[in-house]
Amino acid sequence: MKFPKNFMFGYSWSGFQFEMGLPGSEVESDWWVWVHDKENIASGLVSGDLPENGPAYWHLYKQDHDIAEKLGMDCIRGGIEWARIFPKPTFDVKVDVEKDEEGNIISVDVPESTIKELEKIANMEALEHYRKIYSDWKERGKTFILNLYHWPLPLWIHDPIAVRKLGPDRAPAGWLDEKTVVEFVKFAAFVAYHLDDLVDMWSTMNEPNVVYNQGYINLRSGFPPGYLSFEAAEKAKFNLIQAHIGAYDAIKEYSEKSVGVIYAFAWHDPLAEEYKDEVEEIRKKDYEFVTILHSKGKLDWIGVNYYSRLVYGAKDGHLVPLPGYGFMSERGGFAKSGRPASDFGWEMYPEGLENLLKYLNNAYELPMIITENGMADAADRYRPHYLVSHLKAVYNAMKEGADVRGYLHWSLTDNYEWAQGFRMRFGLVYVDFETKKRYLRPSALVFREIATQKEIPEELAHLADLKFVTRK
Amino acid sequence: MKFPKNFMFGYSWSGFQFEMGLPGSEVESDWWVWVHDKENIASGLVSGDLPENGPAYWHLYKQDHDIAEKLGMDCIRGGIEWARIFPKPTFDVKVDVEKDEEGNIISVDVPESTIKELEKIANMEALEHYRKIYSDWKERGKTFILNLYHWPLPLWIHDPIAVRKLGPDRAPAGWLDEKTVVEFVKFAAFVAYHLDDLVDMWSTMNEPNVVYNQGYINLRSGFPPGYLSFEAAEKAKFNLIQAHIGAYDAIKEYSEKSVGVIYAFAWHDPLAEEYKDEVEEIRKKDYEFVTILHSKGKLDWIGVNYYSRLVYGAKDGHLVPLPGYGFMSERGGFAKSGRPASDFGWEMYPEGLENLLKYLNNAYELPMIITENGMADAADRYRPHYLVSHLKAVYNAMKEGADVRGYLHWSLTDNYEWAQGFRMRFGLVYVDFETKKRYLRPSALVFREIATQKEIPEELAHLADLKFVTRK
Amino acid sequence: MKFPKNFMFGYSWSGFQFEMGLPGSEVESDWWVWVHDKENIASGLVSGDLPENGPAYWHLYKQDHDIAEKLGMDCIRGGIEWARIFPKPTFDVKVDVEKDEEGNIISVDVPESTIKELEKIANMEALEHYRKIYSDWKERGKTFILNLYHWPLPLWIHDPIAVRKLGPDRAPAGWLDEKTVVEFVKFAAFVAYHLDDLVDMWSTMNEPNVVYNQGYINLRSGFPPGYLSFEAAEKAKFNLIQAHIGAYDAIKEYSEKSVGVIYAFAWHDPLAEEYKDEVEEIRKKDYEFVTILHSKGKLDWIGVNYYSRLVYGAKDGHLVPLPGYGFMSERGGFAKSGRPASDFGWEMYPEGLENLLKYLNNAYELPMIITENGMADAADRYRPHYLVSHLKAVYNAMKEGADVRGYLHWSLTDNYEWAQGFRMRFGLVYVDFETKKRYLRPSALVFREIATQKEIPEELAHLADLKFVTRK
Amino acid sequence: MKFPKNFMFGYSWSGFQFEMGLPGSEVESDWWVWVHDKENIASGLVSGDLPENGPAYWHLYKQDHDIAEKLGMDCIRGGIEWARIFPKPTFDVKVDVEKDEEGNIISVDVPESTIKELEKIANMEALEHYRKIYSDWKERGKTFILNLYHWPLPLWIHDPIAVRKLGPDRAPAGWLDEKTVVEFVKFAAFVAYHLDDLVDMWSTMNEPNVVYNQGYINLRSGFPPGYLSFEAAEKAKFNLIQAHIGAYDAIKEYSEKSVGVIYAFAWHDPLAEEYKDEVEEIRKKDYEFVTILHSKGKLDWIGVNYYSRLVYGAKDGHLVPLPGYGFMSERGGFAKSGRPASDFGWEMYPEGLENLLKYLNNAYELPMIITENGMADAADRYRPHYLVSHLKAVYNAMKEGADVRGYLHWSLTDNYEWAQGFRMRFGLVYVDFETKKRYLRPSALVFREIATQKEIPEELAHLADLKFVTRK
Repeated sequence: MKFPKNFMFGYSWSGFQFEMGLPGSEVESDWWVWVHDKENIASGLVSGDLPENGPAYWHLYKQDHDIAEKLGMDCIRGGIEWARIFPKPTFDVKVDVEKDEEGNIISVDVPESTIKELEKIANMEALEHYRKIYSDWKERGKTFILNLYHWPLPLWIHDPIAVRKLGPDRAPAGWLDEKTVVEFVKFAAFVAYHLDDLVDMWSTMNEPNVVYNQGYINLRSGFPPGYLSFEAAEKAKFNLIQAHIGAYDAIKEYSEKSVGVIYAFAWHDPLAEEYKDEVEEIRKKDYEFVTILHSKGKLDWIGVNYYSRLVYGAKDGHLVPLPGYGFMSERGGFAKSGRPASDFGWEMYPEGLENLLKYLNNAYELPMIITENGMADAADRYRPHYLVSHLKAVYNAMKEGADVRGYLHWSLTDNYEWAQGFRMRFGLVYVDFETKKRYLRPSALVFREIATQKEIPEELAHLADLKFVTRK
Repeated sequence: MKFPKNFMFGYSWSGFQFEMGLPGSEVESDWWVWVHDKENIASGLVSGDLPENGPAYWHLYKQDHDIAEKLGMDCIRGGIEWARIFPKPTFDVKVDVEKDEEGNIISVDVPESTIKELEKIANMEALEHYRKIYSDWKERGKTFILNLYHWPLPLWIHDPIAVRKLGPDRAPAGWLDEKTVVEFVKFAAFVAYHLDDLVDMWSTMNEPNVVYNQGYINLRSGFPPGYLSFEAAEKAKFNLIQAHIGAYDAIKEYSEKSVGVIYAFAWHDPLAEEYKDEVEEIRKKDYEFVTILHSKGKLDWIGVNYYSRLVYGAKDGHLVPLPGYGFMSERGGFAKSGRPASDFGWEMYPEGLENLLKYLNNAYELPMIITENGMADAADRYRPHYLVSHLKAVYNAMKEGADVRGYLHWSLTDNYEWAQGFRMRFGLVYVDFETKKRYLRPSALVFREIATQKEIPEELAHLADLKFVTRK
Repeated sequence: MKFPKNFMFGYSWSGFQFEMGLPGSEVESDWWVWVHDKENIASGLVSGDLPENGPAYWHLYKQDHDIAEKLGMDCIRGGIEWARIFPKPTFDVKVDVEKDEEGNIISVDVPESTIKELEKIANMEALEHYRKIYSDWKERGKTFILNLYHWPLPLWIHDPIAVRKLGPDRAPAGWLDEKTVVEFVKFAAFVAYHLDDLVDMWSTMNEPNVVYNQGYINLRSGFPPGYLSFEAAEKAKFNLIQAHIGAYDAIKEYSEKSVGVIYAFAWHDPLAEEYKDEVEEIRKKDYEFVTILHSKGKLDWIGVNYYSRLVYGAKDGHLVPLPGYGFMSERGGFAKSGRPASDFGWEMYPEGLENLLKYLNNAYELPMIITENGMADAADRYRPHYLVSHLKAVYNAMKEGADVRGYLHWSLTDNYEWAQGFRMRFGLVYVDFETKKRYLRPSALVFREIATQKEIPEELAHLADLKFVTRK
Repeated sequence: MKFPKNFMFGYSWSGFQFEMGLPGSEVESDWWVWVHDKENIASGLVSGDLPENGPAYWHLYKQDHDIAEKLGMDCIRGGIEWARIFPKPTFDVKVDVEKDEEGNIISVDVPESTIKELEKIANMEALEHYRKIYSDWKERGKTFILNLYHWPLPLWIHDPIAVRKLGPDRAPAGWLDEKTVVEFVKFAAFVAYHLDDLVDMWSTMNEPNVVYNQGYINLRSGFPPGYLSFEAAEKAKFNLIQAHIGAYDAIKEYSEKSVGVIYAFAWHDPLAEEYKDEVEEIRKKDYEFVTILHSKGKLDWIGVNYYSRLVYGAKDGHLVPLPGYGFMSERGGFAKSGRPASDFGWEMYPEGLENLLKYLNNAYELPMIITENGMADAADRYRPHYLVSHLKAVYNAMKEGADVRGYLHWSLTDNYEWAQGFRMRFGLVYVDFETKKRYLRPSALVFREIATQKEIPEELAHLADLKFVTRK
């Protein structure tokens, strides 16, 4: 199973989850206060693990790039922390905002003069450090994709503890507030202006759907602000769409590269054939964010994050996702399908990725990159099978015409898994968080075999067959 | 193992969990809107089961009393729904409230004239119906204990959805608001005035500690208002103490019966001997509510609700309750001790009840009644062992001097288990919620053998020995 | 669900499993030496538990009859140990044996004169003791069924250790030897002559199919002689048929009661519809023993022992019983159907009993008695459901015309489960083997409710519905 | 963790388990008839899988050697099938046998003239084919160890089905018969004479203790002849000792290489400190075979096969190996220690290997080679951890002075696991038995990293730490 010569293998990282770990790398944000909040910890909403004990990529990036290169990687998708670049409010740097008659933002103009003003309040040292990190990778002759927003917001624009205590109308409310859209566009323009020379492709944001679903609906996820409201979720979704569009235009002002969005695509399966049409409606609704960007012509490529599926059955007259399948399987156990579930309880379901890529190809006809795929599996019991079976799914979809340009694993190293903390280990590389030392898991050796040859060699092809890991 | 002749066997019920089920029994309250709230249901915070599909005790009380009598029961602890008696605000019925210099309530005076005013806004039909229910039991020559508050609050005094949307300072905030104390005392006086002739013993409230812990700290419990704040929990606790004291005095105005409180007593165990002292501190803190009432001389008897334990071990330098033990065991599985856990994941641990009763006897020297004890066990796999082993624990504690007057099982029938809905079945009697029909579980037959003889007969004594239900 | 007035409720016992337990009750036989054999114990073929530590029915029969009566029982099926009555060989007491041209036995004649000779070598004290046991029950005005052979053979006719060491042609080979047929007929005539006054119905033998299948094919069962040979199994089967026929005729010589056989009927289910015909062939083959007796007119009634089923699927081109179902389920776990399995790993499958009774009724048109039904369930977790669901199956079959006369549970008390020893507990009544004390399990109370009323009362009917014990 | 430059990495294979798979490779032997026997299959004593569907090493050896070389292997321990070389009896080729006064064999003389006679009845083509196989490996400049006996015996010297039917005194009884000793020495001399040029080290036999323990005591293992007798086990053990000694001398006649024995060493652990001395007695008894050879000066090196341990606790007053630990753990589950168990139910316990090597070094002061170590793990979930942790155990023991010369994994490829058939997969390399194709498991990549560098590189060292695979 050969991939094209220019097919890229690599990994993805985000600022909050990777950078911290050694002194001098800490940065305050909504997520920072959220995971440190005593009440959140005491109530078990968050793990109590702290990001400042993380893998320390801010300091150890060279070492990780060395490993990545050794494993045959030629592309990284990285991040940049808004709160690190702008620790203080940018409200006072005025910009022109055009709105439609309903008051919705049509465009935010960020000319070079504005960028110069922003420089005065930006943390330019942090910007320089990011330049060093990205350069270290670029100088190896590799590809770099920069994603601008991966969840933490500056505290001056989102204070989740205050939202909880006072309600969103009396505290910085993040994506519930239109202002966040405007400030984000400033940030996007600022970064594009300064770093475009190191960037091969741009993404505005990572998994906006997770932000509004986990933040306002699925409270068990432990995401800020943990404020239950379907209306708020809709509002946040609307503003995130606005933010993407504004950022897309702003980046284009300073860059000729393609600009995309990275989205969390679950695959949706009906338990029985009869639910097929209804599930297709659910799927359309779930991917609507992307459809809107696409329809507005503000999408050059799609970043596909895929982990598992949801399976729907009827309950009290309407379809619901069923426990025991997909993302709702037993942690460290087996899904009802007999497939193993990750430490996180996510069923191994590569068919979902193949189906998804074909579906997206039909729906949007855009270039795609797998920007996240992987599993929480501390013991590496199933990751080799997960990796190869999902790569084969990509291969199969490409054979049927899907325009996939690369596969970026989540992730190279163990890192800080949000509210779960360090217990969910997604790395090809095990990190001893005490010493910050890196160790290769067996799956890293498997990855290397494949990435260096740009094919799944025949002698490893059996790993795509799940019969041995499926419980009878 | 013989119990004294006057030792009482019976069961407990509460309004919200039992009354509804047939048309005409519905009543709005904070819990009512909470379990119907679409966002709560969609997010999985509550089960989606609805109390109006419950066991219908409001209509079928005679039948349940028949069964109770047949099973040898001679005592019931029942409830009365505040929101049913006062569907509209009682604020406008003025009372004298005496406060200390710090503004804390010292006393609330509810003279007969005030009660007459309250009658004008009370639902007197509901009051009459409760009279019928209690009378049906009393006329059998049995004992009746009335508990005034078992969690639901009138919506006009607590609107948990509004609290969530707006914060507790802009919505009826229940126990966070001192006003709730005053209104509760009015309610208490009103009920005492009208129903004291049917009541043998009074309880002001059931498990106030669950109200403030689940409502403001342990959000996973799905209790209203689900507003995370340790400060709020403290505030609610303070107001509940005030409410008890006020109600105690108000009842005494119209009654010569003893007045107690029903409390949720977990037993606290150290994992290792070395934690013993620290766990004793935790225990003291956990029972502090009762200690305060006792110290103020406002407690004539203690209602002991006991289900399981918590086991403490060290994590990051301080003691925490350990998953896998006590209340934190695997649902329908086994605790790490090898003991079975209930459908709810509560370890079967009768030793805890024996220890507890001795402890409380030492600490408070008050008469006690087991006002709740039982397990969620739909298949009745372990309830016979649970029942007999806990009765033996009571017997043992009494032999060592504990002044226990009765054992009220939770519960006679399956009922509505709050955020869990109908999936947690605590009944000696299985209820088919479709047809409302009652069926005896095997444990009901075991209960009958014991209650009718007021002893654990030798031929059933082996059920107290857990060796057969403990996994090796 | 009412049963006819004359429908009998009761239990079954066998000599080897119940009699021993107190000094003076031991008796040597093939099973005795087998379970004491050091090599058998060391290799794990047998449990190491010893029958002399059993429930001591030989001494405590009155007490057990008291309990049985209290539980509403009106019928017992009991046994008599051949080796106890004839501890020494009976070969020398000559009888006329008529054979056909192929040398097969046609008849064995045991006139009164022969019986008188047998008396000289019989243990007449043991006979008297049996008379006392049976009389104690009969004097209560109850029904008694006597079964002559329940597995142990006198050592002088079967020495399984010698068979293993030397082969069956150089050691007393039990049912592989035609002589055993002749001696058994003498024993049958002898018992009929002496005890017919106490017996309401006769059975020649219990589960002959288990004797030849476990003894010669399914070696994991730990049955003597553990000699793998399909040919030997056929031979034993043939001789057991001969033995039944001879005994049938011999009993009729001294009795006017009906004579039947007790058989182990597994229900056979196809995993898929397509296997239906082939499974019907398997079923016919499995019940062939009974069919032969029936075709020869030597069967007045059928004793139906039913515990669980076998489910067949294809493997390597032919049907085999599938692990995970029926008798091949996980011990103490759940069958693949989601039904609970007993401590022995036997799936709870009442449908099988209903199907079976209808099938047998069609096939043989004879009166039937359920002579064994029950489950190994030390904790009594599922026995109440097992009991009621199987009784309902009997009820259903009767409604459709099956001629079932009674239901005898296996068993009243815990006893010695052959190679498994004491770990498999089948009693409605728990026995403390140290003290020999009896205790009622909850299922005994359920049994009492039903047997005393001769119906499954409405208030217990839900126990027949397995939904609560079936794992989703 | 560096190993010495001359430390050998490799794998072991045996004739019966590896050779067959393609037409023309079949050979009759006791094991052949045993696993084909219809009664054995029907009773479940053997799996029903057949060795003629195996990995086909007889034909595909070059391919396997290629893989072995690629994985960094420099040593193979192989086998030769007695029944293949001598399909017909060698009784008639007379030899001088010297016996002591008690009739025990002291020596068997096999001069060149005798070997020439043996050539006439030997299958010289088979001998030539073995020469090709061994040469293919030797020509790569690698080390080859030849083991002469790995369990199958020619049918003319052991017919297990006949032993079962007739008893061992009336059928070819294998190691129960002294004749087998003499014929084995002829075979040993014959092979040494012909193949010594290709052999670097000799082993007379593999795991004789398994032969007599599984064959005559632990019948559940499904080993021939499955004849329960402690006396027979002793007899077989005695004859195997004689056979080793005779073969040792015979090989020395034609070879100057060192001659050893390969033994199955379980590590023995007391559950509690108090059992320590008693367990040391058990250990001594278990290794006695080796001690006897050593004491007689007939042992130049020891082949150490290590898989897991046994843990001893008291039962009925004496020590027994406890279920739930070591070799008696749950298949595919976890040992009671929390360590994973293999598909075969063998606990991962590397400490046992370290302890063992130190113990053997003290006891015998001989060079050692790990001649088998590995796990049945079809999904390769734990093999990487198993491999590295056991290699680290070897490293640790060597650091403390143990004279270990090499590590031979069991095994390179999946193969035929005796009575278990193909379900137990021990390969670093997965074999598709349908197509005979080979695929690398991730553990093969791990092995390669280590073997090619002759060290456990720092970046894989974490795999020796079992914390991630141990269940809390």
